Amino acid sequence: MTTQIAIVLFDRFTALDAVGPYETLGRLPDAETVFVAERTGPVRTDTGNLAITADKSLAEVPHPDIVVVPGGPGQTPQMENPVLLDWLRAADAGSTWTTSVCTGSLLLAAAGLLEGRRATSHWLALDFLKEFGAEPTGERVVLDGKYVTAAGVSSGIDMGLTLLGRIAGDEHAQAVQLLTEYDPRPPYDAGSPEKAPAHLVEEFRTKSRFILT
Amino acid sequence: MTTQIAIVLFDRFTALDAVGPYETLGRLPDAETVFVAERTGPVRTDTGNLAITADKSLAEVPHPDIVVVPGGPGQTPQMENPVLLDWLRAADAGSTWTTSVCTGSLLLAAAGLLEGRRATSHWLALDFLKEFGAEPTGERVVLDGKYVTAAGVSSGIDMGLTLLGRIAGDEHAQAVQLLTEYDPRPPYDAGSPEKAPAHLVEEFRTKSRFILT
Repeated sequence: MTTQIAIVLFDRFTALDAVGPYETLGRLPDAETVFVAERTGPVRTDTGNLAITADKSLAEVPHPDIVVVPGGPGQTPQMENPVLLDWLRAADAGSTWTTSVCTGSLLLAAAGLLEGRRATSHWLALDFLKEFGAEPTGERVVLDGKYVTAAGVSSGIDMGLTLLGRIAGDEHAQAVQLLTEYDPRPPYDAGSPEKAPAHLVEEFRTKSRFILT
Repeated sequence: MTTQIAIVLFDRFTALDAVGPYETLGRLPDAETVFVAERTGPVRTDTGNLAITADKSLAEVPHPDIVVVPGGPGQTPQMENPVLLDWLRAADAGSTWTTSVCTGSLLLAAAGLLEGRRATSHWLALDFLKEFGAEPTGERVVLDGKYVTAAGVSSGIDMGLTLLGRIAGDEHAQAVQLLTEYDPRPPYDAGSPEKAPAHLVEEFRTKSRFILT
């Protein structure tokens, strides 16, 4: 039987959040990946310069085996979108894995799916998970039962490979890593708040939409 | 003045090849990223499950400042597409940077742009660069004059950050690395032919479309 992977799109999502898992987890054998949104058609990213097509509406994909929820600035208004939150709850009821990248975990949390669960999110949003009863951790990929959450943006690649290995075995995941030549060599070592220059971290914390009052 | 970054799409490109540079280099200040293809509209990736919209035709974007060419299985037929090759030559004549990810470098090479240049490509395609007078290197990101080529698929993220640092300065590139939380932790160490299990490397070499006779 084909495994259906649904990747959720919404206005002003972050492209790499969705494309990282697509390019890795989406290489699962006997699987079909489908991009879904409230309505079909092109969905614009946070920069406005890229649109990915939602081939199906949420209503057309009620029972995915794996749910992937990206984040991005557009996540904030979606926190109060009953169509998306209801779909997440219903899809999760039948899924084998429910996953997120970046602030996508806040959407899972807002749908009530991460209560009492260990989870992660973009480093700027991490503490916000507590508001929904989740237990934030600083890990890059967090598995708690069938819930798999990843940190910011690029971490969806690590999440995708991790889950691919769990489902299809280490060798298949290694094959996908080899074919995507995922042997990262960042030119800087500034990819986390612990490693980046402190003034940059401070600057982004001050401007963040996730300031807890 | 706005810097125009043109990311080229063609049928059966590999999504992450294009989205890695988009998410990093595309965060250049005062820049506009535009996805271009022979015709406007949705362009499908190699899996068929993802479509990115080409917002402009190649003809509508004759003078980009930065050219980004992804690869993927669809690169092979494009090697004989005069519309694309002519556009690459003309765009390169006025560009400040001409770049590629994965087998996108073979398209630059086929357009005659990498003759006598050090360059890289997907590990399976590396030797093929020699057919066009380029000098393949095993590095992940290769700069030779204004030509920047990256290795397979995921290397476009490293390429994008590298070029971003060159153009906008180290601090801006570090800020983008921090915001995309690019602190990679692959669950396996199999991302290059030197590190992956030898039988996987051998298997892919045997099946490759880049077998030199």
